[in-house]
Amino acid sequence: MNTKLILKAMGLVLLCEGVSMVPSLLMAFYYDSGDWEAFLISIIITLFSGASLYLMGSGAGGGVGYREGFAVAAFGWVLLAGFGSLPYILSGVLPNPVDAYFETMSGFTTTGASVISEIETLSKAILFWRSLTHWLGGMGIIVLTVALIPSLKIAGLQMFKAEVPGPTKSKVLPRIAQTSRELYKIYLVITVLEIFLLKLAGMDWFDSVIHTFGTVATGGFSSKNTSIAAYDSVLIELIIVVFMIICGINFALHYYSLRGNLKPTLKDPEVRLYLGIILVSVCLVTFDLVNSADYSTGKAARDSLFQVTSIMTTTGYASADFDQWPSMSKTVILLLMFVGGCAGSTGGGIKVSRYLIMFKSISRQIMKLIHPQAVIPLRMGKDVISQEVLDNVQTFFFLYMLILGSSVLFLSSMGLDLVSSISAVAATLGNVGPGLNLVGPMTNYFALPTASKVVLSFCMLIGRLEIYSILLILSFRFWRN
Amino acid sequence: MNTKLILKAMGLVLLCEGVSMVPSLLMAFYYDSGDWEAFLISIIITLFSGASLYLMGSGAGGGVGYREGFAVAAFGWVLLAGFGSLPYILSGVLPNPVDAYFETMSGFTTTGASVISEIETLSKAILFWRSLTHWLGGMGIIVLTVALIPSLKIAGLQMFKAEVPGPTKSKVLPRIAQTSRELYKIYLVITVLEIFLLKLAGMDWFDSVIHTFGTVATGGFSSKNTSIAAYDSVLIELIIVVFMIICGINFALHYYSLRGNLKPTLKDPEVRLYLGIILVSVCLVTFDLVNSADYSTGKAARDSLFQVTSIMTTTGYASADFDQWPSMSKTVILLLMFVGGCAGSTGGGIKVSRYLIMFKSISRQIMKLIHPQAVIPLRMGKDVISQEVLDNVQTFFFLYMLILGSSVLFLSSMGLDLVSSISAVAATLGNVGPGLNLVGPMTNYFALPTASKVVLSFCMLIGRLEIYSILLILSFRFWRN
Repeated sequence: MNTKLILKAMGLVLLCEGVSMVPSLLMAFYYDSGDWEAFLISIIITLFSGASLYLMGSGAGGGVGYREGFAVAAFGWVLLAGFGSLPYILSGVLPNPVDAYFETMSGFTTTGASVISEIETLSKAILFWRSLTHWLGGMGIIVLTVALIPSLKIAGLQMFKAEVPGPTKSKVLPRIAQTSRELYKIYLVITVLEIFLLKLAGMDWFDSVIHTFGTVATGGFSSKNTSIAAYDSVLIELIIVVFMIICGINFALHYYSLRGNLKPTLKDPEVRLYLGIILVSVCLVTFDLVNSADYSTGKAARDSLFQVTSIMTTTGYASADFDQWPSMSKTVILLLMFVGGCAGSTGGGIKVSRYLIMFKSISRQIMKLIHPQAVIPLRMGKDVISQEVLDNVQTFFFLYMLILGSSVLFLSSMGLDLVSSISAVAATLGNVGPGLNLVGPMTNYFALPTASKVVLSFCMLIGRLEIYSILLILSFRFWRN
Repeated sequence: MNTKLILKAMGLVLLCEGVSMVPSLLMAFYYDSGDWEAFLISIIITLFSGASLYLMGSGAGGGVGYREGFAVAAFGWVLLAGFGSLPYILSGVLPNPVDAYFETMSGFTTTGASVISEIETLSKAILFWRSLTHWLGGMGIIVLTVALIPSLKIAGLQMFKAEVPGPTKSKVLPRIAQTSRELYKIYLVITVLEIFLLKLAGMDWFDSVIHTFGTVATGGFSSKNTSIAAYDSVLIELIIVVFMIICGINFALHYYSLRGNLKPTLKDPEVRLYLGIILVSVCLVTFDLVNSADYSTGKAARDSLFQVTSIMTTTGYASADFDQWPSMSKTVILLLMFVGGCAGSTGGGIKVSRYLIMFKSISRQIMKLIHPQAVIPLRMGKDVISQEVLDNVQTFFFLYMLILGSSVLFLSSMGLDLVSSISAVAATLGNVGPGLNLVGPMTNYFALPTASKVVLSFCMLIGRLEIYSILLILSFRFWRN
């Protein structure tokens, strides 16, 4: 293990975070909101710590192995959330460090679960920092996807496949850097586009930026207490729906789409299943709302389109209080939390491609029972899924359920009811945000016991880092040479 | 596909069922309960249908392939439940055929979920038939385990492994018959033993038989409205706990235990995990009951021991209304429904051995991430688990969750709340019996909408037949030659 290199990387991460707080400092001055000291101190602490780590790691040489990569990712997110919570603590918005850490982890993991009830009383500086953690988190996911996920073999997908590192380490870094750069461009283009569209649709500049950050990172932090419902605008909802759908799709496919070639996207089996699930869910919820809750068809279609997309893409914005919806609609919402976006997107959850692979595995098992001697390859589109990938995906699914079960047990030990516990864990582990009942879309995580917030922060982290990264770090063997 | 052979086997199954109703007919005469006509007509219809099928299939030759075996198992259970529901319908106990079918399917699959509220008003003849379906179902599971499960490759376990059919069909049947006979002897010994012990503990003969049938088949039908709570006897509870634990263990191990050799049982990794889960769960629930519900430690330990064992072994007897327990205890109960007994027992659920294999897979995945080139065999005790078994187990787990999700969606579409839906599906798919909330241990499935009873009956069947059997039957390719 190249410890120096890890320290150096951590230092860089913190230096970047410190610099990222500067816009909020300027806003604090500009709007004279009185929290400039909080940001100044946070910046100084973060930059100082970053520089110290960087210096401690200076002179680091050698290649970056995957083990170093995983360590950087895991500790990176933990540190980012730690130092990122300073502005909340120092400004007095969230004096309890656990609350502040929860909020920041929720930001950087693009979960969007909040412990702040009166969002509209926050200063613009704090609001901007809060949403910026989403946007930066989204960038982090992109580099994670390009650099580390391929080695997790979760789904050898499309363009990334060409980028999967070869056997020599020296070739890895330039490729990763190049791919990341392409994807960052896409991320930036989508961001700018949505900001302008939301402004045109009637939001002010500030709110456009806030909600764009929340959308492109599939995060979900809003500047309004009642989220998107506060605008009551079909146009705004539609724009956000379109961008949520886009950002739930593998970013590698947008590389082609932005060059006018929509074919790879439309022919992608994962995208098809992803859009299919959204469509079916919207129909089910619309039907249920009309049938069991006396909605007009128009209102039902509008609310269900927004909410289904928001939960499926793991964004978590709310245009309606889905916790008040009839039983089937709530079940659809809960089930969607376990699906999530496409691999290679900023979305969380188990991911559509994993389901695709597991579905294929079912039909193969049946074939094998009928023809026990047959050797049947697992195909996805034109590609053959290796046994290694299948093992990885199926074990991932089991792990996901195992973590769900243990976390629900822990939450219920603090007295939370089953629906609140299950949905809270599903919403944090899947990086969705709002859940049901106690943690519904029009309430938040503030009232939960402190220990449960610690567990849920960990769920966000472990979900975001695709579980394996965290298990690796926690494994004893990982640290031996 | 050897259709004639299937018809012949179905005929035999029904002839046996018809004969099995005779004791109830005699009891109806003896106790003069007025439902002798119902039984007589049921017997005539069942025997006549059985004889017709047998004759239609007469002259069937050739070997029994696995496909025929699966068809017999699936159609066998469906037909058994169909004809077995006649006494309920004809006697007027359950005039609605869906209710009667639900109750009978629940019996034969050893689930123990009931739609009868006033059990104590039932005649002894009906009560006996109801519990006999459990006991017969348990015998069916044993032959299923010996004859078909090995080809499902769910867990090549212990003694069964020697019995796994070789490549030639001719050798299969004698082996299956021989092993089944040995296991039936064990089943019978356990049954007789428990009847005597319950009688000694204070039950009358009739109730001893009823509750023994419910225990050894891990079924759960009682002759009392309030299940085992009606006796309020520590001794009775202890006896039932011990027998539930025994019947949740691989019957092949009892072959040795009954000959005085306890070593194979005590050294079995599945049994160790099984007992470990029970122990930890009892501790958690006891702690929670004392801590959050003001139970005395003694009462808490007693109730939690009984209830944890009952649910984990998928029996479903109740000595307390666990639906009124605090949050964590209910979560433990719900989670246990997803565990179930050991492979090769009469218990349902996902089975402990599958978890064992999936746990091993997790550590192998982590090892593989650290040493990507390493080839790491999956071991359970001294045995190596093949990739085929692992695939099968992991796909099974995914299928289980998929069926859970879709059935919960269906139930919630009829207006059922989430907790009732989830626990009802978990309790039927896992062949447990009682769930939570609307379907809690002191209420039952009667009030559910008719369509949901159809779905839940199917869940019992699909759970009992280890999912794959049903999928095979539903697969188009299965029927082609």
